[in-house]
Amino acid sequence: MQQYFRKTCGALALLCLSTGALAQEAPKPEQIIKWRQSVYQTIGWECGRIRISLDKGFEREEVKKAADAIAAIANSGLGALYVPGTDKGKGWHDTTLKPEFFSNAAKATEIARSFVKEANDFARVAATGDAATVKSQFGKLTQTCKSCHDEFRKRD
Amino acid sequence: MQQYFRKTCGALALLCLSTGALAQEAPKPEQIIKWRQSVYQTIGWECGRIRISLDKGFEREEVKKAADAIAAIANSGLGALYVPGTDKGKGWHDTTLKPEFFSNAAKATEIARSFVKEANDFARVAATGDAATVKSQFGKLTQTCKSCHDEFRKRD
Repeated sequence: MQQYFRKTCGALALLCLSTGALAQEAPKPEQIIKWRQSVYQTIGWECGRIRISLDKGFEREEVKKAADAIAAIANSGLGALYVPGTDKGKGWHDTTLKPEFFSNAAKATEIARSFVKEANDFARVAATGDAATVKSQFGKLTQTCKSCHDEFRKRD
Repeated sequence: MQQYFRKTCGALALLCLSTGALAQEAPKPEQIIKWRQSVYQTIGWECGRIRISLDKGFEREEVKKAADAIAAIANSGLGALYVPGTDKGKGWHDTTLKPEFFSNAAKATEIARSFVKEANDFARVAATGDAATVKSQFGKLTQTCKSCHDEFRKRD
């Protein structure tokens, strides 16, 4: 485990700090899958905070911060994490991406665009809207997550 | 592994989609550590893209997207992921957070504030600065990562 961790930390240190050629080698599928899983865990964390705020008493500042993070991540170019071939392999755990993600690119693109649109709309609404409007738009955002899971996530 | 994955996915689905009481239970230390590790992996991915752009030919739009994501994540309240007691335990892997993070809160706060400041400055510079200025500010940002690693990350 420690060896594994050192490897992971080493990769991160290279990415963040080095200027050497190593940092520019094409990342391995395992690393790409790990990043992808990490991005969605991060989004999941931010979604959880929003859900708690919406259910337990709307705190605009809390929701806005999480909404801004989700929108910025959504806009940062997640397509780069869907490299052909990464429907197989293991990051933190076995990937659950279906091969259909690559064979049905039109559908994948449609869902990705919806996700970005609803995330941007949610960030706007979170900044100014009332609790009911924010909750409604959060529903639209999470529906795009569900669409992608229904279409492209392996079950078992 | 599949069982493990189902558990993870179940947790995410609850967080994103449910309105039930389960989603509002206090998250377990393992989940908090997993989120924390995922957030820094996400930041590491964005940093890697910036480094490649700065080393191989400055692409402002690419750097700006990644910079915006880092800043929004930094501003989203990462302190919530440093729950006392989570200097022990395993998320995706054993945590490497030192107990000193909690016993030296003043230093931890100082580094956290520097990280947020430099991330915000970097997002501003990425939007308008020339390549040299962007590179210089990226150095200031990654120095805050290194400060935290030097101070609060276990080695071995």
